[in-house]
Amino acid sequence: MALPDFIIEPVVRLALHEDFGIAGDVTSDATIPQALRARYLIRAREGGVIAGLDAARLAARLIDANLSVHVKVPDGALAERGATIAEVEGFARSILAAERTMLNFIGRLSGVATLTRRYVEAVNGTRARIACTRKTTPGLRALEKQAVILGGGGPHRYALSDAILIKDNHVAAAGSIGAAIERAKTAAGHMMAVEVEVDTFAQLEEAMRHQPHAVLLDNFNVEELGRAVALVRGRTILEASGGVRLDSVRAIAETGVDYISVGALTHSAGTLDVAMDAD
Amino acid sequence: MALPDFIIEPVVRLALHEDFGIAGDVTSDATIPQALRARYLIRAREGGVIAGLDAARLAARLIDANLSVHVKVPDGALAERGATIAEVEGFARSILAAERTMLNFIGRLSGVATLTRRYVEAVNGTRARIACTRKTTPGLRALEKQAVILGGGGPHRYALSDAILIKDNHVAAAGSIGAAIERAKTAAGHMMAVEVEVDTFAQLEEAMRHQPHAVLLDNFNVEELGRAVALVRGRTILEASGGVRLDSVRAIAETGVDYISVGALTHSAGTLDVAMDAD
Amino acid sequence: MALPDFIIEPVVRLALHEDFGIAGDVTSDATIPQALRARYLIRAREGGVIAGLDAARLAARLIDANLSVHVKVPDGALAERGATIAEVEGFARSILAAERTMLNFIGRLSGVATLTRRYVEAVNGTRARIACTRKTTPGLRALEKQAVILGGGGPHRYALSDAILIKDNHVAAAGSIGAAIERAKTAAGHMMAVEVEVDTFAQLEEAMRHQPHAVLLDNFNVEELGRAVALVRGRTILEASGGVRLDSVRAIAETGVDYISVGALTHSAGTLDVAMDAD
Amino acid sequence: MALPDFIIEPVVRLALHEDFGIAGDVTSDATIPQALRARYLIRAREGGVIAGLDAARLAARLIDANLSVHVKVPDGALAERGATIAEVEGFARSILAAERTMLNFIGRLSGVATLTRRYVEAVNGTRARIACTRKTTPGLRALEKQAVILGGGGPHRYALSDAILIKDNHVAAAGSIGAAIERAKTAAGHMMAVEVEVDTFAQLEEAMRHQPHAVLLDNFNVEELGRAVALVRGRTILEASGGVRLDSVRAIAETGVDYISVGALTHSAGTLDVAMDAD
Amino acid sequence: MALPDFIIEPVVRLALHEDFGIAGDVTSDATIPQALRARYLIRAREGGVIAGLDAARLAARLIDANLSVHVKVPDGALAERGATIAEVEGFARSILAAERTMLNFIGRLSGVATLTRRYVEAVNGTRARIACTRKTTPGLRALEKQAVILGGGGPHRYALSDAILIKDNHVAAAGSIGAAIERAKTAAGHMMAVEVEVDTFAQLEEAMRHQPHAVLLDNFNVEELGRAVALVRGRTILEASGGVRLDSVRAIAETGVDYISVGALTHSAGTLDVAMDAD
Amino acid sequence: MALPDFIIEPVVRLALHEDFGIAGDVTSDATIPQALRARYLIRAREGGVIAGLDAARLAARLIDANLSVHVKVPDGALAERGATIAEVEGFARSILAAERTMLNFIGRLSGVATLTRRYVEAVNGTRARIACTRKTTPGLRALEKQAVILGGGGPHRYALSDAILIKDNHVAAAGSIGAAIERAKTAAGHMMAVEVEVDTFAQLEEAMRHQPHAVLLDNFNVEELGRAVALVRGRTILEASGGVRLDSVRAIAETGVDYISVGALTHSAGTLDVAMDAD
Repeated sequence: MALPDFIIEPVVRLALHEDFGIAGDVTSDATIPQALRARYLIRAREGGVIAGLDAARLAARLIDANLSVHVKVPDGALAERGATIAEVEGFARSILAAERTMLNFIGRLSGVATLTRRYVEAVNGTRARIACTRKTTPGLRALEKQAVILGGGGPHRYALSDAILIKDNHVAAAGSIGAAIERAKTAAGHMMAVEVEVDTFAQLEEAMRHQPHAVLLDNFNVEELGRAVALVRGRTILEASGGVRLDSVRAIAETGVDYISVGALTHSAGTLDVAMDAD
Repeated sequence: MALPDFIIEPVVRLALHEDFGIAGDVTSDATIPQALRARYLIRAREGGVIAGLDAARLAARLIDANLSVHVKVPDGALAERGATIAEVEGFARSILAAERTMLNFIGRLSGVATLTRRYVEAVNGTRARIACTRKTTPGLRALEKQAVILGGGGPHRYALSDAILIKDNHVAAAGSIGAAIERAKTAAGHMMAVEVEVDTFAQLEEAMRHQPHAVLLDNFNVEELGRAVALVRGRTILEASGGVRLDSVRAIAETGVDYISVGALTHSAGTLDVAMDAD
Repeated sequence: MALPDFIIEPVVRLALHEDFGIAGDVTSDATIPQALRARYLIRAREGGVIAGLDAARLAARLIDANLSVHVKVPDGALAERGATIAEVEGFARSILAAERTMLNFIGRLSGVATLTRRYVEAVNGTRARIACTRKTTPGLRALEKQAVILGGGGPHRYALSDAILIKDNHVAAAGSIGAAIERAKTAAGHMMAVEVEVDTFAQLEEAMRHQPHAVLLDNFNVEELGRAVALVRGRTILEASGGVRLDSVRAIAETGVDYISVGALTHSAGTLDVAMDAD
Repeated sequence: MALPDFIIEPVVRLALHEDFGIAGDVTSDATIPQALRARYLIRAREGGVIAGLDAARLAARLIDANLSVHVKVPDGALAERGATIAEVEGFARSILAAERTMLNFIGRLSGVATLTRRYVEAVNGTRARIACTRKTTPGLRALEKQAVILGGGGPHRYALSDAILIKDNHVAAAGSIGAAIERAKTAAGHMMAVEVEVDTFAQLEEAMRHQPHAVLLDNFNVEELGRAVALVRGRTILEASGGVRLDSVRAIAETGVDYISVGALTHSAGTLDVAMDAD
Repeated sequence: MALPDFIIEPVVRLALHEDFGIAGDVTSDATIPQALRARYLIRAREGGVIAGLDAARLAARLIDANLSVHVKVPDGALAERGATIAEVEGFARSILAAERTMLNFIGRLSGVATLTRRYVEAVNGTRARIACTRKTTPGLRALEKQAVILGGGGPHRYALSDAILIKDNHVAAAGSIGAAIERAKTAAGHMMAVEVEVDTFAQLEEAMRHQPHAVLLDNFNVEELGRAVALVRGRTILEASGGVRLDSVRAIAETGVDYISVGALTHSAGTLDVAMDAD
Repeated sequence: MALPDFIIEPVVRLALHEDFGIAGDVTSDATIPQALRARYLIRAREGGVIAGLDAARLAARLIDANLSVHVKVPDGALAERGATIAEVEGFARSILAAERTMLNFIGRLSGVATLTRRYVEAVNGTRARIACTRKTTPGLRALEKQAVILGGGGPHRYALSDAILIKDNHVAAAGSIGAAIERAKTAAGHMMAVEVEVDTFAQLEEAMRHQPHAVLLDNFNVEELGRAVALVRGRTILEASGGVRLDSVRAIAETGVDYISVGALTHSAGTLDVAMDAD
């Protein structure tokens, strides 16, 4: 299901408060007649995968419950350059007061969905699936994970509490990779996956002796990834991670890894250029 | 003064909740002894202007009030590649539970400060000042505006309620630029600036007849900007805006405009690469 | 536009919680049949300018979404003594549970609007505009500023972040009025007005040499105000402030100042006597 | 005990947000050196009973946890004209950012305490106790009730759920005063008092036959109050209410009623004039 | 009136957040078609008095505003084993996402109402009324007190601020029962009841000399309760408390006490077994 | 790590607000001298495993930051009947105002931990691990899951978003158990476990063909459980669920299942009897 309002409402309210102050759009109040009704179009100034419409719609509703937002290009669909994503109708003052907050949500989240789509298309035909990380914007985790899914990627862990991912600091504290995996499996119970990050083939071999659900190959180059795939022979799930770029992702995928996680999907996606114009 | 906690606490709490779930860092709890104390270093993996330390520190404190964060490169200072930005000491479990949230704030806001610095340096020696816009990340307006200031830029409007900025939709509703400015000045009282956006020289000339505090020259090219500066002769403040890039900003600045506003400072800044390592 | 609910909802919820406890109107629940529907009238027991209806309506809706509130005298209009301001229909228990909170908002905010109207009428025909200050009731800033506007006054600064107003402590720290104004103009950028408070003619003269957007003449008597107006000759905006009373405001206005700010509009307005009666 | 912070924090945070915006005191930030420490004095510009210091202190702490507030005239004590109520020390920028919010709490609540003291002194030597009503400022119920107590008055009901107070609408719905009292006593259980409002002697007599804990004599004049006291002969508690003024309260008290409730204590108290000056 | 949403919304939102995480019902999203609409029945797997439907309905609405909940057995009514309490219609994904939260509210609160009904029936025909205590589940005070009332019991104090109940620690601090009661009556004013807890007949006699509104007989056995009733002869309200069980409550009631308070109603009620099935 | 305050603070604040009203402990304020300091002991009136101390401590701190709570029997330890669990020192008024909220948290959560311990001890020596379910008290999910862990049990899913658990409604919508599992595995990615609930051996066999991480055997009797264990031969994790009681859990465990989930741990745990006495 779509994200319910109670999940996105806190960050939408923050966004409205920080743009509205306590007096709101003094410009529109000064220059636009109170009773003027209007229709404005939210347009894509460049092509991309749309996301963030639920947040935008909630922002509009909280500014003025009588604004109506008619979606033309729904979340997850591709908007051509120039396409109308949504129409907003109601009092002109209300629409303009909501404009920037709406666009900020749509632009940023469509940026994430669009970049994800590019990575997903780049690995098309391989077994590899693209996943994001926890390097998300503070306050936007749910929305950005959703944008990644809309772009065709996977969410990886939503939160620290979802699953176990053993990294170098954990190994150091536990004494060895094997000890860390064993402790993790005991703590995990039957409803939590255990993945372990490895930096070397020695670590990979030690990890494999303790049967984790998945292994994250950290900063392995393409040749090393291929060797790791050959070594593991399908006995666990393999995730490649570290410095993945659009121009390197296909080669990584062709090594045969199962997942490629890409921090850039959320931490460096940029913004899709969207604007609101009078109809 | 620095932003007080009550301003940044809502978004820091959102960020912690979305990463912690209700059970937190199950990996560290499973693999790291409860009593183990540690010191970790937050390091810059690339050089940049640091921002976001207050939010990171608050995140650490909310995870565990006994964590101590010693800042080595304060907000607004330049961190060299590899430099230690801050040291975090306390229970290892607590530090690792806070790690990602802390890094997400520092990385993102340092990205904004660093990009701003680049623009500011690009116009060095001209009269032009670099300013950001309201195209900020939802929930992070205060922190991103502060990051821009730390990078040497100006905040422009903090919120819709701060000042009047008349755009095309307002002009259309008011009937003319002149009518819009007059209405705006009446509504503004004596404590609010009035700026008007113009697309053409005809609009600029009409605007000048009504003495706005500032005029925003929207998508004027460099030649046009120069003409506008010559035409206005210092009688109002001139702001250039629209599609400004790092490689075009110097030429814009040299036209003599007073302000150059750059949406990319906040909407497309990317993230400074920062990481936490065991000491 | 009217204040959207998300702005006034926090204080309306506080008001409801503090009156409702967790068990609500035990009196009505004990004495009034559950299914009894009723219509009650909110009446002005004295004449005045009405304000606060949005907050009252939201209070009613949060108590019971099925209450309907029909406004007869809208915000900003003058209610005669005895006039019905609004009709409230629905379950009698719900209406009575909401009664006091609704009346507390309307009474207090109409008190502000009504007092403002008196000051505005007192300066009728002069160039002076009446403005309120930041001496508002904690939690009610947005609503009280709106009530002042409904009464015909101006809001002055909504918040500390809106504009710069240099007072004696700032001058002392900056070293001189001139230094303070120069620093302020640099910090302000192009979207923020700079006003400076002066106590003497020497300060006024120094201030004028640095071209602030406005000067606040603090506790100047009528004769001094006149002299200041003559001295400034329209080169900046002049605001009179300090101990303004209804019986002195006309004389102040006739000196030719542009603004007269009156703390009493919000800090000592009293309450318009409103009551709810069965229809 | 004093009101704990968790009770007053919501309205203090609202007050800070509405004054701070997201950028805070731009004036002090522009004109006052960051490292400048200072001591300011909160002074009474007129004499009165002090209240609101806890809220003021919390406001200071939320602006800057390192501000210290030394109270010289504690809550409930009488400040002479010119007296220093409290000293505030710390960074000058922080103090000035907190100034207006602190003063707004102290001024308003001291206004309530001071007016209450005047009413209490006016009935000195009689058996009558002065009480406030639920006509409090939205959001400030707890603080204003406390201010009334500090001024020597009684809080009456804190909330609708505390006790039963039967008014005309309840009587109308229940069919008769007797029926209303009986229903109320059944619903009340053993931990809730039942008071009934009467407008006439016939109502008073009917009420007395049903033994309420208290009777509110609504808008009885002094002669009628005396008759009611004589008629009741101590068999229930009598409260006088309606249009009580400072110049009429003594005569009312001398009739022998037990309580006199005064809406004006909270709805029309005005503000004690307090200010903050450099030491 | 029913509890308004603003009272129960905080705990309903907490419950939804803790079950939903930020990604919600991943199982239903994976296995159930997005557009599938369904009707599910909430059924009683054992007989009992129903409560908690308002909270359940609000939970459903916050998950998906288009879910409809048709109540078949309303709050306070008795559901037979197997009976359909409510029907829920809408998108299957939404209903299943809301299922557990809805059932947790209904099961727990119906457990309280059902146990209360058993106690009430056990004392049928005596003058004794069953009341709960403040030993409620944190966060559920309003809902559990309401469930007790729906089961036929009384709420006793809702909060510490409602009424005065003097216990041993208060007596110790005040010096004597008499001193404690006198102080309490002074502080209470006319709108607050005063009850005192006694452990011995000596305390009871001392208490009676100071005329409290009620006396709580703490851990008196049946014989002692009978003696206390005889001693007091109706001059005050008597409440029995301490270790009351279903199999002892009738004998206690037959001693003639007015109230019997039972902590177990809320602290040990167990859960009524309710489930949701496809229609 | 222990639950950080930001996780438990919302429900602790709710609990304090609902007990404190806006005026708090009027009894203690009336009868106990303001400056009286005291030490009270929280005692176990029956033996049990302690939990909830963090919530209790936070409640104390929010009532009065100067209260100190010295823990004698920490979370997870066994308190003998009569043992002192913690000492609370500070102003007597503050301690008594916090008493009930503190005890409500400790009593309820210790009840959960204690019951869990009984189940865990009952299966001692078998391979079975005891787990709770999502049938938790609304608002207390994190605290109750933690109490289960303190009692030696496992948390199962924290939230719907943690892992996939396919139940009958999902199977019905997906068409078959096999289809449901396949869809689930695709959606789950590599970091989420997939469990499926089965009611019959036919379903079990179908499920096993699709290799879920775990199978929940719903309402299988002991003989059937044994057969299922034999059939599965360790190829997946087996969880027994449905109507498990203290007197039946051992026999279930001895069938060789891996997990036994027990809703009663949280939905019917009762309360450990704890009290606060003067030292």
